[in-house]
Amino acid sequence: MATFRAKPVENLLRAKSVAIVGASQKGAWPQGIYRNLKGAKYPGGVYLINPNYGELFGDKCYPNLAALPEVPDKLLVLIPTRAVLGVLEEAAKLGTKSATIYTAGFGEGDDEKGKERAQAMKELCERTGMVICGPNCMGSYSVGEGLWTFPTATPLLKQGPVGLVFQSGGSLGNWIKGATERGIGFSYAVSSGNEVSLDLVDYLAYLVDDPDTKVITLMVEGIRRPDEFMTVADQALGKGKPILVVKLGRSEMGKRQAISHTGSLAGADEVFDAVCHRLGLIRCPTLEDLTETTLAFMPGRFPKGSRAAIVVNSGGMKGLICDHCDELKTNLAQLSDKTKEAVRPLIPSELVVENPLECGVAGFGDEQGFINIVKLHAEDDGVDLLAIHGELPRGQQRSAGLFKSVTTATEKPILAFARSTYSCTDESRAFQEEAGMPFLQAIKPTLRALAGLGLYGVRRQLGVPKLAVASGHASDLEGENLNALLQRNGIALPKQAMAGTAADAALKAKEIGFPVAIKLIAAEVVHKTESGAVVLGLKSAEEVQAEGQKLLTKTLGRGHLLIQQMVQGTEVLIGARTDPQYGPFLIVGLGGIFVEVLKDVAIRLLPVDELEARAMVSELRGYKVLEGVRGQGPRDIDALVKAMVGLSDIFAAHRNYLSDMEINPIMVRPQGQGAVAVDVRLLRK
Amino acid sequence: MATFRAKPVENLLRAKSVAIVGASQKGAWPQGIYRNLKGAKYPGGVYLINPNYGELFGDKCYPNLAALPEVPDKLLVLIPTRAVLGVLEEAAKLGTKSATIYTAGFGEGDDEKGKERAQAMKELCERTGMVICGPNCMGSYSVGEGLWTFPTATPLLKQGPVGLVFQSGGSLGNWIKGATERGIGFSYAVSSGNEVSLDLVDYLAYLVDDPDTKVITLMVEGIRRPDEFMTVADQALGKGKPILVVKLGRSEMGKRQAISHTGSLAGADEVFDAVCHRLGLIRCPTLEDLTETTLAFMPGRFPKGSRAAIVVNSGGMKGLICDHCDELKTNLAQLSDKTKEAVRPLIPSELVVENPLECGVAGFGDEQGFINIVKLHAEDDGVDLLAIHGELPRGQQRSAGLFKSVTTATEKPILAFARSTYSCTDESRAFQEEAGMPFLQAIKPTLRALAGLGLYGVRRQLGVPKLAVASGHASDLEGENLNALLQRNGIALPKQAMAGTAADAALKAKEIGFPVAIKLIAAEVVHKTESGAVVLGLKSAEEVQAEGQKLLTKTLGRGHLLIQQMVQGTEVLIGARTDPQYGPFLIVGLGGIFVEVLKDVAIRLLPVDELEARAMVSELRGYKVLEGVRGQGPRDIDALVKAMVGLSDIFAAHRNYLSDMEINPIMVRPQGQGAVAVDVRLLRK
Repeated sequence: MATFRAKPVENLLRAKSVAIVGASQKGAWPQGIYRNLKGAKYPGGVYLINPNYGELFGDKCYPNLAALPEVPDKLLVLIPTRAVLGVLEEAAKLGTKSATIYTAGFGEGDDEKGKERAQAMKELCERTGMVICGPNCMGSYSVGEGLWTFPTATPLLKQGPVGLVFQSGGSLGNWIKGATERGIGFSYAVSSGNEVSLDLVDYLAYLVDDPDTKVITLMVEGIRRPDEFMTVADQALGKGKPILVVKLGRSEMGKRQAISHTGSLAGADEVFDAVCHRLGLIRCPTLEDLTETTLAFMPGRFPKGSRAAIVVNSGGMKGLICDHCDELKTNLAQLSDKTKEAVRPLIPSELVVENPLECGVAGFGDEQGFINIVKLHAEDDGVDLLAIHGELPRGQQRSAGLFKSVTTATEKPILAFARSTYSCTDESRAFQEEAGMPFLQAIKPTLRALAGLGLYGVRRQLGVPKLAVASGHASDLEGENLNALLQRNGIALPKQAMAGTAADAALKAKEIGFPVAIKLIAAEVVHKTESGAVVLGLKSAEEVQAEGQKLLTKTLGRGHLLIQQMVQGTEVLIGARTDPQYGPFLIVGLGGIFVEVLKDVAIRLLPVDELEARAMVSELRGYKVLEGVRGQGPRDIDALVKAMVGLSDIFAAHRNYLSDMEINPIMVRPQGQGAVAVDVRLLRK
Repeated sequence: MATFRAKPVENLLRAKSVAIVGASQKGAWPQGIYRNLKGAKYPGGVYLINPNYGELFGDKCYPNLAALPEVPDKLLVLIPTRAVLGVLEEAAKLGTKSATIYTAGFGEGDDEKGKERAQAMKELCERTGMVICGPNCMGSYSVGEGLWTFPTATPLLKQGPVGLVFQSGGSLGNWIKGATERGIGFSYAVSSGNEVSLDLVDYLAYLVDDPDTKVITLMVEGIRRPDEFMTVADQALGKGKPILVVKLGRSEMGKRQAISHTGSLAGADEVFDAVCHRLGLIRCPTLEDLTETTLAFMPGRFPKGSRAAIVVNSGGMKGLICDHCDELKTNLAQLSDKTKEAVRPLIPSELVVENPLECGVAGFGDEQGFINIVKLHAEDDGVDLLAIHGELPRGQQRSAGLFKSVTTATEKPILAFARSTYSCTDESRAFQEEAGMPFLQAIKPTLRALAGLGLYGVRRQLGVPKLAVASGHASDLEGENLNALLQRNGIALPKQAMAGTAADAALKAKEIGFPVAIKLIAAEVVHKTESGAVVLGLKSAEEVQAEGQKLLTKTLGRGHLLIQQMVQGTEVLIGARTDPQYGPFLIVGLGGIFVEVLKDVAIRLLPVDELEARAMVSELRGYKVLEGVRGQGPRDIDALVKAMVGLSDIFAAHRNYLSDMEINPIMVRPQGQGAVAVDVRLLRK
């Protein structure tokens, strides 16, 4: 991973004075910013600049920067696009260290002029050392500093552990309102806009270093510096600061929109999932999931594993949970016999002691009884984290003492949750605070938050494996060396031989044993099956000779023939390549339709070890095919896993010479009989 | 569908006086019920019964029913299980017409005694005409009547158009609180519990008849009388009263829980989806989706089609929407050129005019401009319904005039929505009321609500096709008659012939032309491929004779041989059978792995016409295989569709004789070359 060089983000987020350039009564934003700064009791100087006003919002208005009584640390720029660069030059000369540019017209959409302006701004920053938020952004909020530069009517943020960077300012405005209503508190919140100067990674690095920030939430359209992003994300994991991400661009339409919106790169979305998996980033599918997951991570408790226990009061709720656990593949803990025996007398006899647990109607009236059952679950060594039934009060003040008693009785992560959404009030937030436990809403987001905590906990335990130096030699990939390399790395090959003539092919085929396949090997043949350069199932020397002759004729005799033992098995594709954004990765999928039609693949960054390879295989939708279907026994998954690890190692060692290495198919044979790489293709750099 | 005989549900929901049997200071429920009845200003008599108290909650307490000054219309029963039946007998004699039984112990779990008690209660109701809500329920709320019998602290419901029946009382309590906070008003809300007397269908029928109820929401664990349920749902569709359903039991674990919780039947969940599709029921995956969908349906506007236009202000929001539209297959309207031209000058030039539309940052400050753009979309004939960016205010009072102007400018359904969740206040609800437009939260639930409105609108237009009388004869299904029947119904068969000996088989094979397959037909052979009773790809008379002899030997010569032309094509399975709960249905899936491993099938109730069959095929995940992959051209989907309709017709006409009819595989050949039913299997009743 790349090393990361920090920029002085503090010049932006901790500026001691600001000037609103383009303060005006036209449009709501200038006044909004001014009102917010005053609302947050920002202690620094706030200067209004507009030559057309002597006074504005009841405050003095200055004609230009030079007229100010002090040089402002930071500009808040709302003037027309064409005037922006001039003001920045002037300010830089005066000694202003940062600016937030709300104005658009610097690189969105296909506008070439905008791209030129963005480039000029970038150069200005590099030359002068100024740092810029935006352009085309909605400002930032440094909660501890009272430096609130959003232009819209968001609520006064509560100070808290969450640092936030959203590339979409509108989404930031909407989300922090809802999050605040749920009791989430913030250290910093930044709308990064087009990121001409400071980008996502700069803010992220700042938050990773900031002692007040404990959890980081991102909404990402595209990552401009993926390598640095991964470096900083790795540091965050090391410091135990979880990063929660909503990322656009799963769909083609969404990817196009993400690129057009702020001119960022979108990249391969599936590989980003692999990045998240490797670095313990928690990817949230929606903003509402981000809310629930943030609540879940806020207490700063991380589990040792992912085994969850769920305890609720209502049978209907349990029914909903069961359906969603199945859908989301929740890792439900196996309760110990001790726990089961202790719980049995505490719930009605007609209810089953299992996970998820329904405590029964009795629990509704008997909160103490419910809490006692929860505590028994928390004590179970097989339980890494818990989710329990709980809904915040609204109108009436109520003691949260019982929930608090759970929070203090265990160090495991524990979430309360309701089965659907509801509105929170001051009483709700006070109750949650007192309980010391987050109260989530709706079942699926809760289960996803549990999964996220589990994934993070496991990744914290495992650490992030590092890619070894690429120590392989180019010559390893040639001819017989390649075959030896493959076999040394657990990748078995079918019996095979090369022949220059059809007659020779027939001889070699006899040695190998029938049936065989023959393939034409020639420079001009790329995708073999489609161009008819493979003949399968030849049962005799005569057939080999005849078909071999036909093939060679295609290349006017300039090709060779590969004669290969025919291997039966389940077709699987495994491949390794280098993503231009995120680096080398491994991919696995069941052959043919599964990959092509269903896109049923699993992807991980290199290196991939056995544990990871096995997890990849088991998360395929078509996994059951490998487990055995239609009267067939299980396939040799161990051999497939071994080959995957081998491919990972080979590609990692030779990544300087290879852009792509694919085995398609590798035939996975019945359990104990191995897997055979029928077709190995290399794409050299 | 069955005819439905109404029970006097009004005796329960419109009772003029109630007695709380088991009133007590122990437990929270008796006092909760009493407090709720007073809170809702129930005008009828409320009598407390418990021989241990003279006074309770500041009111007189009576020793028994006979001591009351009047015979109560309805009992609210909270006494121990063993005493319930006795009280009911006494009350029935006195003339009490209904009861709500909170007490459990009547059929949950595996308790045989409970099942006996439930049976005795059922008989009591049949004998005396009494109707009962529950047992094991949490009461009901007749909002207009002030008859509020929930035992817990739910809010005072707002009177409104939504009638609700939940089998899970706990879920009802949670959901109506959240729904009320969102401005949803109710006519009736019923927790139906174990449904020993009144069941889901009874309440549903009552709500369909009730003039104050316009939208019906259900949470269902199992449907006891599916046939009657479908009859009443059909009536609801006729009356334009949409039914929105959360149903448990998608997973095996969830199904088990649903059965155990209230002792109901769970049934085949996939077929319930087909029921929803056919009758225009809107199935919501979660309770939070139910909230949003209820809001969407509350205005009582239904679209003519499902083509949705989406207009938002933020680029980030558009990005999220794009990803989710793709995932949820939202039917996005194609805007007319007229609309596009009118919109173009109203948004910044760097933004694209497309659906979904991003209006640009300008829109944030210019609500009038945004609304003008929305109105242009509403006027487009290609747009059936709309979703537009909109978030309710919280703290401050604000005019909803601009939104109101859209509501009055169009008759099409129109929803405002925010990209995530937030908390509502009195100001929010007042704004929404004034706007006359529902304000939804979060993108995916909004898109699902749009889809639900579209589905409902289309179903209203199409109507519900009725299954014709089963007019076929048993003899149609025999031998050559069956072949003729299949071919008359568009189901082509391969060339084939029967032979009694291997030699005869070889002769017949020559006539058909090679390659052929031969199959052993004998009583003891059931699943042919697995028992080795099929030999494929025979290329000569000699091979046929040799393999035929081997097959016949397996049955000691007692079988016959079917010789069949080998047909190449894409393997598809189509089948028709009768679900024990919901009746005859058609199923289609791509052959082999797709069906067995991925459960990639589409299901519809019979009859299935061409439109429906085509929709079924196109919703398969493997649809692309039929469209053509791996260098293959498209398959003959028309022929497949024709065969599906044919199978639907044959099964419908002969359903009295058949329990299952399956064509597996039907080989779908390249476009224009038809589809051939290679194996047709009947299971006779």
